[in-house]
Amino acid sequence: MRIEQYQIDQHNDSLLSRHNNHFIFAKEQLAEQGINADDVVKALADFQVAIPSWALGTGGTRFGRFSGVGEPRSLEEKIEDVGLLHALNRSSGSISLHIPWDIPGQAQSIMDLASSVNLKFDAVNSNTFQDQKDQEQSYKFGSLSHVDPKVRKQAVEHNIEVIKYGKELGSKALSIWLSDGSCFPGQSNFVKSFQNTLESLQEIYAALPEDWKVYVEYKAYEPNFYSTVIQDWGSSLLFCQKLGPKADVLVDLGHHLPNANIEQIVATLMMEGRLAGFHFNDSKYGDDDLTVGSIRPYMLFLIFVELVEGMKRAGRASDTYAWMIDASHNVKDPLEDLLQSVEAILLAYAQSLIVDRKKLEQARNENDVVLAQQILQNAFRTDVRPLVRESMRLAGGALDPIALFRNLSVRTELMNERGGLTVATGL
Amino acid sequence: MRIEQYQIDQHNDSLLSRHNNHFIFAKEQLAEQGINADDVVKALADFQVAIPSWALGTGGTRFGRFSGVGEPRSLEEKIEDVGLLHALNRSSGSISLHIPWDIPGQAQSIMDLASSVNLKFDAVNSNTFQDQKDQEQSYKFGSLSHVDPKVRKQAVEHNIEVIKYGKELGSKALSIWLSDGSCFPGQSNFVKSFQNTLESLQEIYAALPEDWKVYVEYKAYEPNFYSTVIQDWGSSLLFCQKLGPKADVLVDLGHHLPNANIEQIVATLMMEGRLAGFHFNDSKYGDDDLTVGSIRPYMLFLIFVELVEGMKRAGRASDTYAWMIDASHNVKDPLEDLLQSVEAILLAYAQSLIVDRKKLEQARNENDVVLAQQILQNAFRTDVRPLVRESMRLAGGALDPIALFRNLSVRTELMNERGGLTVATGL
Amino acid sequence: MRIEQYQIDQHNDSLLSRHNNHFIFAKEQLAEQGINADDVVKALADFQVAIPSWALGTGGTRFGRFSGVGEPRSLEEKIEDVGLLHALNRSSGSISLHIPWDIPGQAQSIMDLASSVNLKFDAVNSNTFQDQKDQEQSYKFGSLSHVDPKVRKQAVEHNIEVIKYGKELGSKALSIWLSDGSCFPGQSNFVKSFQNTLESLQEIYAALPEDWKVYVEYKAYEPNFYSTVIQDWGSSLLFCQKLGPKADVLVDLGHHLPNANIEQIVATLMMEGRLAGFHFNDSKYGDDDLTVGSIRPYMLFLIFVELVEGMKRAGRASDTYAWMIDASHNVKDPLEDLLQSVEAILLAYAQSLIVDRKKLEQARNENDVVLAQQILQNAFRTDVRPLVRESMRLAGGALDPIALFRNLSVRTELMNERGGLTVATGL
Amino acid sequence: MRIEQYQIDQHNDSLLSRHNNHFIFAKEQLAEQGINADDVVKALADFQVAIPSWALGTGGTRFGRFSGVGEPRSLEEKIEDVGLLHALNRSSGSISLHIPWDIPGQAQSIMDLASSVNLKFDAVNSNTFQDQKDQEQSYKFGSLSHVDPKVRKQAVEHNIEVIKYGKELGSKALSIWLSDGSCFPGQSNFVKSFQNTLESLQEIYAALPEDWKVYVEYKAYEPNFYSTVIQDWGSSLLFCQKLGPKADVLVDLGHHLPNANIEQIVATLMMEGRLAGFHFNDSKYGDDDLTVGSIRPYMLFLIFVELVEGMKRAGRASDTYAWMIDASHNVKDPLEDLLQSVEAILLAYAQSLIVDRKKLEQARNENDVVLAQQILQNAFRTDVRPLVRESMRLAGGALDPIALFRNLSVRTELMNERGGLTVATGL
Repeated sequence: MRIEQYQIDQHNDSLLSRHNNHFIFAKEQLAEQGINADDVVKALADFQVAIPSWALGTGGTRFGRFSGVGEPRSLEEKIEDVGLLHALNRSSGSISLHIPWDIPGQAQSIMDLASSVNLKFDAVNSNTFQDQKDQEQSYKFGSLSHVDPKVRKQAVEHNIEVIKYGKELGSKALSIWLSDGSCFPGQSNFVKSFQNTLESLQEIYAALPEDWKVYVEYKAYEPNFYSTVIQDWGSSLLFCQKLGPKADVLVDLGHHLPNANIEQIVATLMMEGRLAGFHFNDSKYGDDDLTVGSIRPYMLFLIFVELVEGMKRAGRASDTYAWMIDASHNVKDPLEDLLQSVEAILLAYAQSLIVDRKKLEQARNENDVVLAQQILQNAFRTDVRPLVRESMRLAGGALDPIALFRNLSVRTELMNERGGLTVATGL
Repeated sequence: MRIEQYQIDQHNDSLLSRHNNHFIFAKEQLAEQGINADDVVKALADFQVAIPSWALGTGGTRFGRFSGVGEPRSLEEKIEDVGLLHALNRSSGSISLHIPWDIPGQAQSIMDLASSVNLKFDAVNSNTFQDQKDQEQSYKFGSLSHVDPKVRKQAVEHNIEVIKYGKELGSKALSIWLSDGSCFPGQSNFVKSFQNTLESLQEIYAALPEDWKVYVEYKAYEPNFYSTVIQDWGSSLLFCQKLGPKADVLVDLGHHLPNANIEQIVATLMMEGRLAGFHFNDSKYGDDDLTVGSIRPYMLFLIFVELVEGMKRAGRASDTYAWMIDASHNVKDPLEDLLQSVEAILLAYAQSLIVDRKKLEQARNENDVVLAQQILQNAFRTDVRPLVRESMRLAGGALDPIALFRNLSVRTELMNERGGLTVATGL
Repeated sequence: MRIEQYQIDQHNDSLLSRHNNHFIFAKEQLAEQGINADDVVKALADFQVAIPSWALGTGGTRFGRFSGVGEPRSLEEKIEDVGLLHALNRSSGSISLHIPWDIPGQAQSIMDLASSVNLKFDAVNSNTFQDQKDQEQSYKFGSLSHVDPKVRKQAVEHNIEVIKYGKELGSKALSIWLSDGSCFPGQSNFVKSFQNTLESLQEIYAALPEDWKVYVEYKAYEPNFYSTVIQDWGSSLLFCQKLGPKADVLVDLGHHLPNANIEQIVATLMMEGRLAGFHFNDSKYGDDDLTVGSIRPYMLFLIFVELVEGMKRAGRASDTYAWMIDASHNVKDPLEDLLQSVEAILLAYAQSLIVDRKKLEQARNENDVVLAQQILQNAFRTDVRPLVRESMRLAGGALDPIALFRNLSVRTELMNERGGLTVATGL
Repeated sequence: MRIEQYQIDQHNDSLLSRHNNHFIFAKEQLAEQGINADDVVKALADFQVAIPSWALGTGGTRFGRFSGVGEPRSLEEKIEDVGLLHALNRSSGSISLHIPWDIPGQAQSIMDLASSVNLKFDAVNSNTFQDQKDQEQSYKFGSLSHVDPKVRKQAVEHNIEVIKYGKELGSKALSIWLSDGSCFPGQSNFVKSFQNTLESLQEIYAALPEDWKVYVEYKAYEPNFYSTVIQDWGSSLLFCQKLGPKADVLVDLGHHLPNANIEQIVATLMMEGRLAGFHFNDSKYGDDDLTVGSIRPYMLFLIFVELVEGMKRAGRASDTYAWMIDASHNVKDPLEDLLQSVEAILLAYAQSLIVDRKKLEQARNENDVVLAQQILQNAFRTDVRPLVRESMRLAGGALDPIALFRNLSVRTELMNERGGLTVATGL
């Protein structure tokens, strides 16, 4: 299924008058503060969020999974799904593949398909946290960190194979999330695990094409419940320092201990020139993988405040970082959930763009804590939805993507095409 | 010092035109959704937040305290301070006293003074977590729960004395925060501590005037770092059930374990008809006592969503609950901090008032999780500041209380009157 | 496979001399403190821990599952497994079934089989957190709390059916863990969810046989990541109060927020006469379901200190409570893991039995915190392993159950009988 | 007051027979496992724990402080106190001073006094988290990270002055705990704060004598409740990397987020050759500063398992690290509390020394998780108190330091000398 431009246009027409009122008000309101709304709208249009191939099906927990309907049965259908999202919001212009769940058969035809729905291929993801059928060595007790060199070798080779697939599709980065760790005190020798992992990563690093990056993700716990080899940003950074300039740290919002100040971590990593990008989601308890912005929208905004400042300081454009959603859709339609997530990201980005940074620095320099807070809250409390909508509209997207998704009965259509009992590969 | 009405009017005049634009837009935006902004404005005006007498000075931590200037030196000056706040925002119409820090000498003159600045006396607070000079028994190892009946007796009598002071001033409730607990495993017999506390509370309860309430606060930890006698809402409720209908549970946002779902606790307590009210503040790590809404504004909003629903279900007006700010101002001017807190409370209340509850229930009944989230987020993302400002303005308050506070150099004025080296009694 | 008594005796003979030395030393050491070791040994023998049928296979996480070998393929083989455990440690004399995973075909033959390996049937567990094949209504959005009365009806009937199965096997309790809750703010009406659940539970309660109990378990989060209907002990107790005297609160160690003081919760529930029993496990981050005692053995001991005191105060024997292990064995042989867990429970129980309670109360009454801590630590630091071993030995069990399990190659034997590719029903 | 050797000897004589029985049993028990108890005893004797000067008085919380009696009124009396501890346990042979609370007037006489009670001077500690009387610049908004270079300069100079005092007393390290951070989002520019701090530290580093070290401590939060400049080990390490080889990371057990795996952090820092040492304490909720080993003794043991392995790997003796207790004694006699803490440290050290590391590595290499756990637990469950007692006895200390402390009425004696109303400088 494809959504045609005329369908989007019709939808927009019906909402345009009200939207224009809202946008004009927002524009005037910002102008009063010396901010040009059109600049914000333009910056928003440049911000593209990758969709991971595994987020297109219904997720589950260790207690079970309640399937949805019409889920994609193949890589082609996953590309179709992301194409639908991108048609609606014009902000989801790439897909991030997971190997071995999404091994592309014919690279060229896959690329053509993606291109036909305006998608690029983002970072490719390896998987050494599950055993695949007919796999020789098991990852039950680790992969890149395993005590047995045969297991490490297999895991290294898998990563190198993932690079190969990525090269064929035009990816420029390998993203590694390593679940290695231990479930019980005593199980692991922390130092040997670190060193085994380092050696494995060095072999993978050596296989990176000239213009590639490797993203090293960290996670405090789960699926190992006592220790994780790459447990926090400090560990990730240590690995990257030892690997070299092509290795950067990937931050997943849900991978921290309770109460962590993630925005400060982001600032530090950007200061060191080592932030690869983000896996966006939200959470209340652990790595809950909820819809972005659904629990702690102010924290999301504060993170974007640092991102915007860090990008400016480094003189880097937003498309030189890897932005991706990494969520699990257990009780929502995956596509609707992704639309909500992308919207939340753009809203936080818009809010951070209208922070009066000059006044903020001045307030900081005078230790005027009340004013500094007020400046941030003023941005956060501003209704920036019209800016996000305008940005999507100008790019050819829908003013209200979820409403259109529902009006067009996209899910029913997909179910009709694919059947009700499909199960997408994924978590 | 007093702020005169003409000063407020002048201030408002200068901002009125812009404010009117914003308010009219908000009104139209809400009208599109079938909501009458004037009803919201009216409800906001009825919402009064008590200021505790101990929040008027600079707070500190166990590591030290960095004084501010011009802090109130007496109960009279504390009333003056709250009067200033109320003049500015018309939403802080009562003061909550702490005994023995604020023992009123001449009740009538204190009442006259309060009345002259339009203040009432909210719940009175006892203190058995510190030793006062010349106190016979020490609270080092507890008060109402103490193993020694003499200490319990002293603590009970103190609470009864607090009721007496409260009666003189027209208070209608005694608020008890009990820090009793233990610092080490083994130190306390949990059951005996509970039972001692219950007996003590029963004696206090017996001394309550006919039309009074007693509020039983809970706290997970601090200043005791292993156990607290009233550690959570379940414990508080158990005490209240055993005490009788005059005892209700008081919720302080900072008194929970990490990640607690406080809004659900609120809903449950209201369902049981046992919510006394709130101590508002915000926090990231523990009982940080930060400015309301400065860390987790969305959670504050979700709590208000429950409050509004609970009040409606119970058919109770907002002024039948005890709303109070309980924060510690370590790096901000206390009065500015309180203005920010009251504003944050009113914003969350306004947002919760514009939730489309009919549609929300419908979405819930259809398990339309996407829509339910959208309905809440729509309210939260709406810029309701014009409504709060309009409400204050109509009540005679300032459109921008902090700006006026600064323009009038209130703190400098107070410093001139009181001196720079004053230290308010407080935490 | 069965373990014969002569095999155990041979094993014990080889270790007896060393064991005797250790036991005699322990006995003398305790005698110096006025404690009769034989009394402790006897009390240990009476403490039986139920094994849940789902703990006999390898567990997994949402990221995957790494199977073990020789896992039980049927209820009969699960009983065989627990029989092996009980033969080894004589402390695992009952099995707790999970419906529908373990529907007994012929009750009498199942009972005969269990009886032949000296097992009883503990509480039966219902499951409304997963959808079963051909189930009419889905539990995707809840069961006993569901907005749709048809779903609630189905869930109630399932629970009543579970009671029926339990009656046939001689169980005396229904254990309900309700995963109902919500993943996103707005999704649920907290009060309606509570009331729906209450009504459902009342129907189940009405179907309880005269001499049965229903255990109401609580859990802070997971698999729902925003709210859980029965989120904490306070909620559980509220339900039990409304249900009646046959309803008690079941505590699972892993179901709390970070840093919770669980021992105080236990004490309070016992004070109220509402503790049903325990689901034992251990955890570092969330509901990690690790081996009992593997992470926080001192906390386990402190819990037992309360259990022992509470049982004494209530005049109830240890076998009037429901003790069960509820763990997930992801990287260990499930049977070895369970042997370690039972041992950890008995060690904590033994330590708590040798606490000098008279001196402890005296120290508490004198606020001698140093001494109170010392009394507890003295018990905890004592090596009570000889007592646990002696208790098992006297009951016919092995001095070193895991060593014997390995020496007899039990797992290999089971694999030979059952095959390597079996997968136990379970989590 | 001094404790004479004959008093210790008399005390030991009365306990010797029982102690010998226990020690002989322990020795035999270890011999069965191929461990020489005398080696452990010897290693214990070499382990000296520094006592901070501020831990000798009663601590408090922000809610108040309940004084003890007979607290030291001067640096001389603090040295007297630590001398008493060391006389009793022979394991507290150094004192760590805090400037400006303990400015030594006459360095030589202070050194003579310390020497007379067998004490050395450990790391000296600077304080830029409080304002001192007549201090020109305030640290209300930070010190080494402050936006104002004048404040930074003052803080740098203070640290250099602390080095000067330390040099006079024979110290070899400066210990910096920086409380700098922010209380509210927006207050600080994270990157500028980092860079200001780095510059300040570089100036201090430049002033270090040839053979000195600087210890950089981190803390997640408190007294700042939104962000801390040096928030975790990753931040500390980053500073140390930029400073140079004389800078190492100091770990305080209470300075982490909930559930942190501290033992892994320790292992990583030792792998990098960057562990300075430890501030020992224990906690349940935050930086509770409780008696070492009173809450999580197994975690303490796991940390020592890493320390022992790390020291062995690095070929460094235990006295080349800085071990210190950093606790707050709110409800216990400070000296008794310190005796309990030192005992807990030595017990954990002893347990970690009897871990069968060869078998452990073998179990790890075979992924025998059950056995690996058993090896650690076997060490932890062994009663090593006789080893610690024997070690103290051989060094001339008491078999039961707290009992002797009480028998000799040390506190009463100190109260008689110093008076009941003294207040030690400290937290």
